[in-house]
Parts: sequence; structure tokens; C-alpha cells
Amino acid sequence: MRRILYTVTLLCLAAPRPGEAQSWQPPPDAQRCPSKWGADDQRGAGNHMKPETVLRAVQLMRTGQVIELGRVLHPAMAFSLGRRFELITKRTNMNPGSNRRGSNEEIVYSEIGQVGTQFDAFAHQTIGDSLYNCNKLDQISTRNGFTRLGVENVGSIVTRGVLIDVAALKGVAQLPETYPITAQDLQDALARQKMTLQPGDAAIVNTGWGALWGKDDERYMRVNPGLTAGAAEWLAKQDPVLVGADNGPINVTPDPDPQLNNPVHQIMLVVHGIHLLENLKLDELAAGRIYEFALVVQPLKIRGGTGSTVAPIAIR
Amino acid sequence: MRRILYTVTLLCLAAPRPGEAQSWQPPPDAQRCPSKWGADDQRGAGNHMKPETVLRAVQLMRTGQVIELGRVLHPAMAFSLGRRFELITKRTNMNPGSNRRGSNEEIVYSEIGQVGTQFDAFAHQTIGDSLYNCNKLDQISTRNGFTRLGVENVGSIVTRGVLIDVAALKGVAQLPETYPITAQDLQDALARQKMTLQPGDAAIVNTGWGALWGKDDERYMRVNPGLTAGAAEWLAKQDPVLVGADNGPINVTPDPDPQLNNPVHQIMLVVHGIHLLENLKLDELAAGRIYEFALVVQPLKIRGGTGSTVAPIAIR
Amino acid sequence: MRRILYTVTLLCLAAPRPGEAQSWQPPPDAQRCPSKWGADDQRGAGNHMKPETVLRAVQLMRTGQVIELGRVLHPAMAFSLGRRFELITKRTNMNPGSNRRGSNEEIVYSEIGQVGTQFDAFAHQTIGDSLYNCNKLDQISTRNGFTRLGVENVGSIVTRGVLIDVAALKGVAQLPETYPITAQDLQDALARQKMTLQPGDAAIVNTGWGALWGKDDERYMRVNPGLTAGAAEWLAKQDPVLVGADNGPINVTPDPDPQLNNPVHQIMLVVHGIHLLENLKLDELAAGRIYEFALVVQPLKIRGGTGSTVAPIAIR
Amino acid sequence: MRRILYTVTLLCLAAPRPGEAQSWQPPPDAQRCPSKWGADDQRGAGNHMKPETVLRAVQLMRTGQVIELGRVLHPAMAFSLGRRFELITKRTNMNPGSNRRGSNEEIVYSEIGQVGTQFDAFAHQTIGDSLYNCNKLDQISTRNGFTRLGVENVGSIVTRGVLIDVAALKGVAQLPETYPITAQDLQDALARQKMTLQPGDAAIVNTGWGALWGKDDERYMRVNPGLTAGAAEWLAKQDPVLVGADNGPINVTPDPDPQLNNPVHQIMLVVHGIHLLENLKLDELAAGRIYEFALVVQPLKIRGGTGSTVAPIAIR
Repeated sequence: MRRILYTVTLLCLAAPRPGEAQSWQPPPDAQRCPSKWGADDQRGAGNHMKPETVLRAVQLMRTGQVIELGRVLHPAMAFSLGRRFELITKRTNMNPGSNRRGSNEEIVYSEIGQVGTQFDAFAHQTIGDSLYNCNKLDQISTRNGFTRLGVENVGSIVTRGVLIDVAALKGVAQLPETYPITAQDLQDALARQKMTLQPGDAAIVNTGWGALWGKDDERYMRVNPGLTAGAAEWLAKQDPVLVGADNGPINVTPDPDPQLNNPVHQIMLVVHGIHLLENLKLDELAAGRIYEFALVVQPLKIRGGTGSTVAPIAIR
Repeated sequence: MRRILYTVTLLCLAAPRPGEAQSWQPPPDAQRCPSKWGADDQRGAGNHMKPETVLRAVQLMRTGQVIELGRVLHPAMAFSLGRRFELITKRTNMNPGSNRRGSNEEIVYSEIGQVGTQFDAFAHQTIGDSLYNCNKLDQISTRNGFTRLGVENVGSIVTRGVLIDVAALKGVAQLPETYPITAQDLQDALARQKMTLQPGDAAIVNTGWGALWGKDDERYMRVNPGLTAGAAEWLAKQDPVLVGADNGPINVTPDPDPQLNNPVHQIMLVVHGIHLLENLKLDELAAGRIYEFALVVQPLKIRGGTGSTVAPIAIR
Repeated sequence: MRRILYTVTLLCLAAPRPGEAQSWQPPPDAQRCPSKWGADDQRGAGNHMKPETVLRAVQLMRTGQVIELGRVLHPAMAFSLGRRFELITKRTNMNPGSNRRGSNEEIVYSEIGQVGTQFDAFAHQTIGDSLYNCNKLDQISTRNGFTRLGVENVGSIVTRGVLIDVAALKGVAQLPETYPITAQDLQDALARQKMTLQPGDAAIVNTGWGALWGKDDERYMRVNPGLTAGAAEWLAKQDPVLVGADNGPINVTPDPDPQLNNPVHQIMLVVHGIHLLENLKLDELAAGRIYEFALVVQPLKIRGGTGSTVAPIAIR
Repeated sequence: MRRILYTVTLLCLAAPRPGEAQSWQPPPDAQRCPSKWGADDQRGAGNHMKPETVLRAVQLMRTGQVIELGRVLHPAMAFSLGRRFELITKRTNMNPGSNRRGSNEEIVYSEIGQVGTQFDAFAHQTIGDSLYNCNKLDQISTRNGFTRLGVENVGSIVTRGVLIDVAALKGVAQLPETYPITAQDLQDALARQKMTLQPGDAAIVNTGWGALWGKDDERYMRVNPGLTAGAAEWLAKQDPVLVGADNGPINVTPDPDPQLNNPVHQIMLVVHGIHLLENLKLDELAAGRIYEFALVVQPLKIRGGTGSTVAPIAIR
């Protein structure tokens, strides 16, 4: 009965958009495993990180300009529900010795892999009890990290970054608060920029939503323009190493399909093994129409971690 | 009386080495402030980070090879006294929705600025109650970070890295356990490599000590070959953006001058405003005789933090 | 100039009340040290905890009724600024063995000595750099606790508790939000209850403010009726082992003297060595007019801790 | 095949002792639910905590002597695997005001319900996915505590405590390191003390093992004399409110049945709803032959917590 109600709601409110699948369903294990990178693979699209990919990025470093894409980490920043970043500066320790050396350091208590500008590893998400390459939750999870798919396997990302400015395509600084970005939108934005994606690129979507960070954090977290499942499926076909955006969930929130909860996270991390990069600060890139650049991201090598807060840069 | 004993010990055990000051004393505030970067400056040698410095590094990215210089972070790694890295994987959260999306994340409790491969900001060290540019401890410290000199001010480092392989100079894989590296050693090692340092470079010293990491952590932390105060003073004159090594304190431990406790930390961070990069993994660079490369380091933007654990890379 | 302004404000707004000192000043070390319990003493009024004091409490245990005076601890409770209580339930650990034993446990990150219903030890407060019995901050503080005056020295408190119901004296359920309780108020309330305090008693003040806990936490923390310095000095003369209340700071907030910040904390913990018991749940005692009872408080034995969250009970 | 091997091992190494069941098996849900306290009950043997039980304890408070049974909490104490107690004293905060009030407090990071002398609530243990009164793990567990069976439901325990001194029965200060205490041992020890257990008592078993605490923590945690499943079943029949001991797991370690892992925890917490009290300091009680006393335990009211570190006392 409840299911019927869901379906009716769906028919009324979320009528299919042309060119988009109406609703996404997680593929069964057999359909998605082994991954195209091999049955034992833990790196997914991270396998793109080869010298030729790096050199392609290096070609774009022409002026030496560095643009920071990461948010400052502090206890009052915007968080997904239930996450924290607590920082306690320890008492200054005066070391022995005639040189009167005092040392300072701080304790941080945080879901450090999933706060601020953050990079998602594959241990972060499941479809039921199954993760990327059909690793099973109860076989790879422990109380102190994952034995497979942890962020320590990723290494630094150095690749061509492409800003797909959907806000600019629509002629606005900021997309409407629950705007569902479609595959067509992405293609139109790229066409407007006269660009195409290449395998191994970092696809960075500008929604303009990031302008709310630190200004109206409550709204920033509650709703956001972002990708639909259909847009994510199209992006995944372009074979990027990662997909990023200036919002928290990459997915539009709420999803236009009321039965779905952030399918983009599953499409990227579980089905296709493509990393995500969230809460990016994209205002400088967008304002400067810097649509192509070298992206450098250095996830912390947290053993068994589901992700890492990061301080990525664009170099051009 | 105790002071006299100290002095006698000093005369007997730590006779001055030719070409080295016998013992270092922290300069009074008036002698070191304002810093050469200006009285209000918080960035010190980080001011070298300009497009031309970046481009100089880009010139060295010729093959696209990326070499990781960071250690994996885990609860049982080597720590300086009193530091921790605790990681608790939270229970999997099954989100509402028909797509059965499970989310994983972890709490980390750690002196996250001062564990593993770590980058030191200027808030980390004092001479008495005085920090870089004579900022005073009680004026810039709070329970939740520093109001000045925090690591969030640094930004990414992209510069020419120079490996100064002192172990290779001495014809060994690993320097003896308390070997004091002198200014002459550094100059000889550079001469052997037919290289000179340029302002804004990252000076990375290979001692071979890093081979103990994860193998004999107790010994790795207890003693180590490293820089003398004299070597540090010479290095500081070369005007690097940072000084790194494959040991914990950069300084030789214990210091040959029994009255001194890690003067190198004060010389670099307090007196000259030069960053430090500790616990580097340098085995691949040393084995490959890769003495020149682009170094990329992305400290987390921890507001008011004394440093950041990092996952730096060399690109060539 | 600023001082003059302060004084004028003081004259206008905080005119002395009859029988109360107009304004309190922390006594110099020489006037308060050594404490009456001896120069090396760390226990202060805790020295009252002797068999005869316990037996006096036991006399009051007549019906076997137990009344809980402690608040439930959870992450969203009322906190003093900058404090937290974070709780993460770890993943269930299935132990080896045929009996399929699963274990659950949780990480708590908290200022555990200073949240919820809390018992203050003497390490908690200073006058300048001086604590109870003129212990100096830099001589007894470390990064990991105090070497003297820690809560582990206290032991359990089992004593006669006396509820001094000032709200009932005034004929209200709750005193006005910044009502300053005077020494006269305390004496009147005791007289109304036909009671006197004895050395070693626990003096528990009911203001009615506790009714806001969990209902309007913001207001509960921002202002509160409570003791004036004068009331505290009078109470201290009665020689109790502890002073408690159904508010956070025991002191009225803000203090009627605009120059003073919670003098009651200094009067009790620093000057007289009398413990404090905060955020008590007193509604049942007040409703039942239970003015005399056995109070049992078991502070956790946290080595070097400044206090302990507790779950005290009244038994009668 | 593996099961057969187990059985053979069992027959050879763990031959049944007279009067003891050879091996224990967790009863199926249907056999143990609803509990004797009712299908919705969350308090189990805590239901004994009624005025008459308290008064029975009060009868034993004759001298006013208080004996502490709790261990001091510190970062280097003995822990079960994977647990911690980290304490960071925050920087002293100098409050505004002319009275120069400094405040100290500390962050604690710990499995605070399961360290030191600890009281176990029913959320702590499972048989498979089933807890006390057949509450199911996935229905009552969250990332931030349990929605049922949490320690906040318990309240203080004030009851008659009976020390069952098995070490004294055997004429030793400390039982051998893996001595399995049988039901017969318990009965003999009680007979020697001329005592019987009554419903609602706290049954406290002295093994002498506690003498190792702080002296040889590694051995203290690795093995220990303790109860067999048979002894636990007999004790449970006596209907105590809690069972305590001067060891970590109450159960003998390792269990004589190689297939079993701490069945005593399941017997008490899951099957019978009887609390456990671990790592007690019993030396004073044993030395003084204080076999009967009032026990007072105040678990912290941690919402959804699996237990609480405590500082219990005996009063006589």
C-alpha cells in the first residue's frame, strides 16, 4: 500500500524529463561486478593516474597561478548531519633546555574524512551491504577502518580539471535551490565552453551554490542544485577520475525521485568506482571563466578511511 | 651549581667543530623582529609562493612520474610523545529510500597537525613566549586555535624540491644514529650533486633514518641523525620556503649541545619564518637519485592550527 | 578612565544591599594560605568526610526512598560555552566462539568533568595564577591533568544534605531570572524550614531555575538566579563540604557587580576549599518539601581532573 | 569438519567437572523471552531497587566507614583491547572581570562506559543480533547510542553487597591465573563465611587477581581466574542485582570450553538481565574480611550508553 502511494506520488510529481531515465535503480551485483578495472581492483578510476595523465595536466600550467579550491576547517562550518570538527589547542609545553623552546599542538576530533572540502573514497558508500567491486560490508569493515577500499590507496590526483559551469549556461550566478542538473545541461554547458571531457579528467560542476557556504549554512545543507541520476550516468560514461561540485552531496537535494536518496553517490562510488570531491570553493574559477586547469588533490593517507578532507588547488 | 656542571659537560663532550658555532642562543626579539617580510607578516618564507616559483617547479615536471613522500596514517604508527591517531569507524547508516544507500564515515581523534608526515606552521613553536615576528603567546592563543600564524594562512606549496642526500655523500644508506649534519655536509652534498639552492626552494635532507619507520619505531623516535643549529643557520640563509627530512625533528637528536633542545625548530619557525616538513618518505627519491623535482604539499586549512599532517608528492 | 566609568556604573546600578558587602575582592595569597586544613592539604572541606559525618547521613535514611538529582547526558543538552558531549557507538564486534557474543561500546568525547550535573574539584578555578592553598598554575598543571588538586583525591561524598529552598521562601516556583540570593535570603529560608546548617553538610540551594533544563536551554545558560558573593561568604562560614544548586554557575548571572565574574566559584573552590555541585535536578525534592536527606555523590576518579560529571542521589 | 575437531578437543581438554554442565549454549530467544520482568522491561534485575532493598543496605551502615572500590582513571591504565582514556587539559581561560578568575577543564576521549571500574548495562552484549528481552540490534542501535537498554535507565544501586571470597576459601591471596570458579566454589565460600545470598544483593567475587592492576597490567588483561558458565548460572538463580569481581571479564579467561567466549557476559546481561561490575578494587574488603556491606554504585546517566565507568563504595 505504501509502495503504491509512492508510485502515485512519483507519477504526479516527478514526471520523466525528456532524455532522462525517470527513476534509477541500483544495479544488481552481477551487473556491475567485476568492475571494468578487474575483480581485485580497489582503485577504480584512480587507475587513470598515470604519467600521461599527469603530463596532460602539466601542459595546462602556463602562468603559475594557483587557485585554492578548499574551505577553511573550523568548528562552526557547515556539516552534514551528525558530523563535527572540534579543535582543542593543548597547553604550551616548555621543553627542557636553555633555549626556552615552547611547543604548541592541537587535538582535533572530527569525521576528518567527511568534513569541509572532502574527497570520497569507495569505502564511503554501499548499495545494501555491497560496495565497489562487490566488496561486502561485513568482510571489509572493522571498528578501526576498512581492510579494503580505504583512502590510503588513492594517492594524489594530478589531472586536467574541467569546470562545467551550469550556472553560467543558465545565465545565473546561482542555480535555483533544487535545480536538477540533467545530462543535457552538462552537454550544453560543455558545448557553450567549446570543450569535451576526456577519460581521466576531473569533472567539476559549478552550480553557484557554494556562495552560501559560511553565509547561510543551514540552507546550504538543507537543499541544493545538483546532478540527477541521469546526469551522473552520462558523466560516468565520460570516464572521469573524479566528479566534483560546489555543494555537499553532488546530487540535487532532494532528489526529484522521492524514492531515491542521493543515487549519484552510489552511481559514482559503488557502481563505477569514480571518486567525488565535495564542497569545493569554485567562485574564483567561475568568475575568471577558468574552465580548464591542472587539478591537484592530496587526500590524507588515512588507513582504512572512507575519505579525506582536502585542500585542492587549480594550477594554470 | 647545576649550570656550572652543564658548562663542564659541554666543554668535555661537545667541543666545537671547526666551522660551526659551538652553541646556539635564541636571538632576542629586537634582533629578529620585524621579520624581513614585514612587521605584520604571517607567511614568512611562504611569501615565495608566487607564479614564477610555481613555473620553476613546472619546468621540472617532464616525465609525469609522481612519487609519494607521505606516510600512511594509523593508530600504531610512530608518534612524538603524547600524540595519538585514533580512528573509529562509525556504524553504517542506512539512508531512507528505495536505493538502499549505506553510508560509512569515521571519527578521528588526533593531534592532526603533528602526526605522520607533517607540515609545521609558525604557531607551532616559541622562544619563551614569543613566536614568529614576535607575536606573543598570550595574545594569539585561544583554547580553539591561534588567531594568527595558523596553518590556514599557508596555502599549497608548489616549488622546486632539492634532495640533499647527506647519506649518499657519506657513502651509507643510513647515517649513524646521532650524526650531526653540519653546514659543510650540506654544501658538500650539494656539490657532489652539482646543485645549488635557490630562494623559494624546498630543501629536503636525506639521512636514511626514514628506513626505520614502521620497522623500529621506538629507535626512530628516540634518536636520529639530523641538522645542527649551524647547518640550520646556513640553510636559512639560502632562503628556502621549507626544510624537510626523513626524520621527526629535523634537528639531530639529542642535540650535540646538551643545553639545547631542538634549536632547528626555533631557527626555522620562530627566527626565520621557514616551514618544516617532517617524517618524509624519501627512499624512492634517494634510490632513484632524483635530486631535483617539483614538490607539491597541501596542508589542510585548519583554522588556527599549528600544522597539518600531509601527503606530499614529488613530480618530475 | 575605564575604571572610573566602571565605578560610576557600580554606584548607580549596584548600590549595596543592606547586610551585603558591596563588592567582593579576591583576597591576596597571604590572607588565605595556608588553608585551615593545613599547608599541604588538597582535600579542603572534603576532610569532613569521616565516619561520624557518614553516620549522621545514615540517620536520615528512614524510608529507603532514592531520589535522583542528576541530569541525563546527551549531545544536545545545555552546555557552558565551548563544551561538548559527543557519543559514537562503535560497530558491534562479534567475538570468536560458538556462543555468538556481540559486544557494544561507545566513544565519548567530552569535557567530562564539566558537563551535565557536575562536581567541581579545586583544580577547576584560580585567582590569577593561584589555586586552592596557593598552589600555582605552572607548578601543578600539565597537558594531561593536574599533579595536585585533581578530582581523584576527593572520594565519595556521603553526608547530610540540606535543601535551602529560596524559591519557596519567596513564594514562587522559580526565582526571577537574575535574582541575587543574599545571605539574608539563605538565613530566612532556613528559618522558614526550621533548620540550621552543620559543618560537613551539603548545602543545596533551590532556585527553581532547573525547570528550564531541556526546555529552554539557551535561557538556562544565559542568565540565572543564584548566590551573590555575600551569600557565598556566609555559606562558607557554615563550613559545608559542598554547595550545590539547580543552575550552572551557582553564582547569580550576571553578577550584580559588573566588575565581577562568578566570584562564588573563587570563594568556594579557591579561597575556602569547598566543592560545588552544579546543574542539579531538584524538582522532586522541592515538590516533596524534602529539606533534609542523605546526599551521595560519587565523582569519577579522573587522575588530575578538574571535576566530574555525576549522578548524585538523595536517600531518605 | 571444523565442528568435529572442536568437539574432540573439547572431550580431551575440557572434560566435564562434577556438578558443572560441560558446556554452555546460548538459549534460543523463545526460551528466554519475555524476561521474568515482563516483555517491555528494560531494567532486569535493576527492578530490585526498591525502598526495602535500600533499607536492607542501610541496616549494614553501622560504623560510617567508607571503602572505595573504584580504580583511578588515567591514560596508561589497563584496558581491554582497543579502548582508550585520553585526557587533555585545556588552556586556562582567564575570564573577564576584575576578580581574575581562571578556569580549567579537560577533554576526555574514552570508551567511558567500558574503562576502569565499570558497570555494564544491557546494551553492552548480544547473542547474535539479540539483546536482553530479545531486543534486536538493528532496531535499537544508532550511531549515537541505543534507543533501549541504555545505562541511563539504571539509576543508582544501593543494596547489600556480599563479598564471596573464593581466594580465601582456597587459602591463597590470589587464585591461579586461569582458575575456573565453579558453582560449588561459590557455595563453599559462602558457607565458610556463614552467609547466604538474597534476591537483590550485589554478589562480589574476590579472586585476588586485582592485585595485578597497575603492577602487571599485561598479565591482568591476558588471563584471569573467574566464573565458569556453570557458576554464573547458579549465581543468576540467586537473583542478584549485579555480579562483580576484581577482574576484567568476570568470566575465567580463557574459558575452559575452547568453543566459548565469555559466556558469563551473555548469561548475566542477555539471558537474565543482571548487571556486571568489573575491575573492582577489593583488597581492603578482603583484608578486613568485610563480607557484608552496603554497596553504592552511581552509573553516569549516559543516554543510550552501554555502561559507565564508576567509583563505587562499600559503606559499613
